[in-house]
Amino acid sequence: MNGADRLCDTLLASGVDVCFANPGTSEMHFVAALDRKPAMRCVLALFEGVATGAADGYGRMAGKPAATLLHTGPGLGNGLANLHNARRARTPLVNIVGDHASYHLGFDAPLTSDIDSIARPMSAFVRRATGPDDVGPAAEATIAAAIERQGVATLILPSDAAWSPVGPSDARPAAIASPPKVDEARLADLATALIAAGGRAGLLLAGKAPRGAALEMAGRIAARTGARLFEEVLNGRSERGGDRVPLERIPYPIDQAVAALADLDLLVLVGAREPVAFFAYPGKPSRLLPDGCRIETLAGPGDDIPDALKRLAERLGATRPPPRRVAATTAPGSPSGPLTEDAVSVIAAAGLTEDAIVVDEALTSGRRFYALSASGPRHDYMMCTGGAIGTGMPLSVGAAIACPGRKVVTLQADGSGMYTLQALWTAAREKLDVLVVIFANRAYAILRLEMGNVGVTGFGHNADRMLRLDEPALDWVSLARGMGVEAARADTCERFADLYRSAVGTKGPFLIEAVI
Amino acid sequence: MNGADRLCDTLLASGVDVCFANPGTSEMHFVAALDRKPAMRCVLALFEGVATGAADGYGRMAGKPAATLLHTGPGLGNGLANLHNARRARTPLVNIVGDHASYHLGFDAPLTSDIDSIARPMSAFVRRATGPDDVGPAAEATIAAAIERQGVATLILPSDAAWSPVGPSDARPAAIASPPKVDEARLADLATALIAAGGRAGLLLAGKAPRGAALEMAGRIAARTGARLFEEVLNGRSERGGDRVPLERIPYPIDQAVAALADLDLLVLVGAREPVAFFAYPGKPSRLLPDGCRIETLAGPGDDIPDALKRLAERLGATRPPPRRVAATTAPGSPSGPLTEDAVSVIAAAGLTEDAIVVDEALTSGRRFYALSASGPRHDYMMCTGGAIGTGMPLSVGAAIACPGRKVVTLQADGSGMYTLQALWTAAREKLDVLVVIFANRAYAILRLEMGNVGVTGFGHNADRMLRLDEPALDWVSLARGMGVEAARADTCERFADLYRSAVGTKGPFLIEAVI
Repeated sequence: MNGADRLCDTLLASGVDVCFANPGTSEMHFVAALDRKPAMRCVLALFEGVATGAADGYGRMAGKPAATLLHTGPGLGNGLANLHNARRARTPLVNIVGDHASYHLGFDAPLTSDIDSIARPMSAFVRRATGPDDVGPAAEATIAAAIERQGVATLILPSDAAWSPVGPSDARPAAIASPPKVDEARLADLATALIAAGGRAGLLLAGKAPRGAALEMAGRIAARTGARLFEEVLNGRSERGGDRVPLERIPYPIDQAVAALADLDLLVLVGAREPVAFFAYPGKPSRLLPDGCRIETLAGPGDDIPDALKRLAERLGATRPPPRRVAATTAPGSPSGPLTEDAVSVIAAAGLTEDAIVVDEALTSGRRFYALSASGPRHDYMMCTGGAIGTGMPLSVGAAIACPGRKVVTLQADGSGMYTLQALWTAAREKLDVLVVIFANRAYAILRLEMGNVGVTGFGHNADRMLRLDEPALDWVSLARGMGVEAARADTCERFADLYRSAVGTKGPFLIEAVI
Repeated sequence: MNGADRLCDTLLASGVDVCFANPGTSEMHFVAALDRKPAMRCVLALFEGVATGAADGYGRMAGKPAATLLHTGPGLGNGLANLHNARRARTPLVNIVGDHASYHLGFDAPLTSDIDSIARPMSAFVRRATGPDDVGPAAEATIAAAIERQGVATLILPSDAAWSPVGPSDARPAAIASPPKVDEARLADLATALIAAGGRAGLLLAGKAPRGAALEMAGRIAARTGARLFEEVLNGRSERGGDRVPLERIPYPIDQAVAALADLDLLVLVGAREPVAFFAYPGKPSRLLPDGCRIETLAGPGDDIPDALKRLAERLGATRPPPRRVAATTAPGSPSGPLTEDAVSVIAAAGLTEDAIVVDEALTSGRRFYALSASGPRHDYMMCTGGAIGTGMPLSVGAAIACPGRKVVTLQADGSGMYTLQALWTAAREKLDVLVVIFANRAYAILRLEMGNVGVTGFGHNADRMLRLDEPALDWVSLARGMGVEAARADTCERFADLYRSAVGTKGPFLIEAVI
């Protein structure tokens, strides 16, 4: 029984039984310990950004953390972008980073770096195990922090803490504090304020709020008070479609975002933060809310959000069920002819199956999908919350492992897909029920828009070569097959519709390159 | 004329005229400025780790820095592993990271993170431009730091500093201090010590030392004093083959490393640091040198290394040319039959062309190549200096851009190659003369060795799945074609020899999957 065994046992005792790993030499004892714990499902990623993104997707869907296993500072660096997205999605995640033996650090061996400094910006909590007997307590504290703070908690595991013996006592589960409850006075204030503001109030739902009973209660509050219900521009996970309470998403383009919120006198944050501009643009505001709009917090991400919404609804006497299904937008018919980005969205939304999980990193290309799918069957919807591209396929891997009975549909832009295309291999190895639709516009199309937004017009040779991906064109069918995933290409609406219909009706990984 | 223009002009005025970029919204003004500077060669990477690794390869070969262009904290995170390798290779590199507008940072927009904290562990120098008029001075200081310290210098560029106007004055080149010269007393001490130690002394050459006139002088010193000449286990760039002075590489396996250095009474560091164990292993030492071995520094990475070696040679009266060509190791003949990792090394070394640049990230598979190529034609040899895998193909991209007339041969393990396979696309787009040989052993073979080194024996289900890449097997021919690079597979020696001969004799990117 060594420190690595103790770490595995503590994870398992706390219900953390999936580990997305890309180990190196300093983690070999952890790997050996995993070998002795068949209850732990180890999922290999061929790049750390896949491991961290998959842990994010798992955490969003499972509502409990997965672990990662990363190798020293560079491995953590590779995983950092998707840890950034996880922290913005408020995902509970136990991020384990192996380091050199503690006594070896002073020699500054080639792989040595300041892991703590690299971890801190993307972590709500960082702890370094000080020795083998600290591994258990450190793991408990890390797991508790991930769950209580709904965020990324990083445990740095020096290899000598992993390989040295620990006492024979049993591992303990982490002690998790119950999420704090909102006090009555706050509920009373907000109830009064919402009634007073009527249709000029909004609730912004994030974290656990746009799901399940919490979402239902938010709908009753809206029906009672006239308040509008919003979700963030890039949401972590919303439950949508079917008879779910619909939400308005705050638009990404700044002028549209400002317009969408212009009538508000009050915004109540439920697991969310004040909405701000995604980027600064010359002459545009950083804040999206109108001057004088009051901002109040009902509950933070770590608070008992379902309880807070339920009690607020009760206090308001909001017992009336909210309006259900969204009125279907004008039936778009069956697109035909050459494939376009909108046609992909139309066909994908129309063909969505009940209880699918949609991962949307289509960025500019998939704009229509969100509106169209609102009136479709029940589904979960996840996005690239932190704006760090390369999250779509990794999120899908994690979601598929969390929810083995459900189809995962990934709407993936080509430029961002290239960041973490190694996720396809993990989908193949684990035989995951993931469909990836590549919006192959062969450009960083969002940046062409942003050039305009920041006041730049006209493209010359250098700029054009920075924003286009068409020379040579990426062949996603070959890339997918190279990693063991079946794939096909469509450049007409009819062909795409056939492929999509077939893929959503068949289990297992598949990729469609939609040439638009 | 805005801050972004000033940055480009300052780079160009200082001779920095290649930029490996993966820009985002906050860098759009920089991209627009690049558009106005046709003298700047912009090379797009589809992942930031490719951009930073290419800038490393460029800096190692060109002897002057390239610039990168990365997007905020997550983009920097993606580039961090190869910045780590660059800092260990002592590569001059100007690392430019765009950030939000300064006034927007306080709103903690989704993409906001603590860039300074992420940059510092891998940077010798970090500076944030405080406004448009600080961009010029900040760029000058960053360029100077990269060159004077021979390391990664990071400039953080807030988007408002980039887009705001600056005065019309011309950009100035960075003022670069001459590298410090070693004083006479030090040379006298070391000359005496080397004579006294004779064959029990060694010189460890790194940075600029194992190249050109510096290497020649080291050879004369060795011929005069009997001292041995070493290079580091993972070297940044050595000039080898032909009539170059041969070096002993410190072995990677710790027992072999200790044995190789066991007879030393004195080690003189020339641009190098004390050699230490790559990893700590239970019961093994962290230091490689024997007890009592004296360690002296002739020159640090930023000192005038060629001058120091020349003057030391003069003081020693070391005018005799050193022994030249390495005696050829026993001719291995022409391997035949099923391909093996050693056969790949034998064929690749035998077929190496004059003045090729070899990038070796073959790890366990390419062990024989190093010894065999020592007696071959003149070539440069580069490795994964920091142990952060995923550097091979990016280094090759940068080297090919720095040296357009030379063939770059990349010996690439499959597991590490998957980290930054996006480099193939840049090789295709820029039509680079890069041959990539994939050692397709379909395993993290080095970790199977390391499991043994850390005292773990036997593999069960979980460990086995962490260390094998064969389920499904990667199809590198498809992966390469998916990114526009021609490719072919070999599983016999004859087929590999044919493909290799043809590829080294033809210009342009090509990949051979050597199934071993």
